Amino acid sequence: MKAIVSVMLRPGVLDPQGKAIGQALHSMGFSEVGNVRQGKKIEIALPDGIDPETARKRLSDMAEKLLVNPVIEDYEIEITAQAV
Amino acid sequence: MKAIVSVMLRPGVLDPQGKAIGQALHSMGFSEVGNVRQGKKIEIALPDGIDPETARKRLSDMAEKLLVNPVIEDYEIEITAQAV
Repeated sequence: MKAIVSVMLRPGVLDPQGKAIGQALHSMGFSEVGNVRQGKKIEIALPDGIDPETARKRLSDMAEKLLVNPVIEDYEIEITAQAV
Repeated sequence: MKAIVSVMLRPGVLDPQGKAIGQALHSMGFSEVGNVRQGKKIEIALPDGIDPETARKRLSDMAEKLLVNPVIEDYEIEITAQAV
């Protein structure tokens, strides 16, 4: 089983990395590009037998204790069948 | 319209950041955690009127020219309705 924790800066938090990507794309001629934001995608392999409900709770715990800075970041958890 | 470009290291490419996260989770008692890999998630706002097929081509172009290092990274494009 594979879980994906997506971590993005909260709306309103300045994202210089995203801004830099946006400016670079503009200067390369991709003028249709609007706001750009960059976040992290963390793939975590979990044992196949694990109950999805339990997995989700454990992943929230991991996110809040280690993966995410809740002052400036939001996260989403997605659980899929496929292995990492 | 919003597009998401997910960039992950190719399988087989060493991912020290993912490894560090995995080890930290283990030392915090999350012993069910297996392999961990960290990638980037880039959200790009696009004009609402744009044709999804055209958008996908332009995004592949952006990925290959700027966002992705094809020697060590793979990418996926996802197009959603919601604005960034």
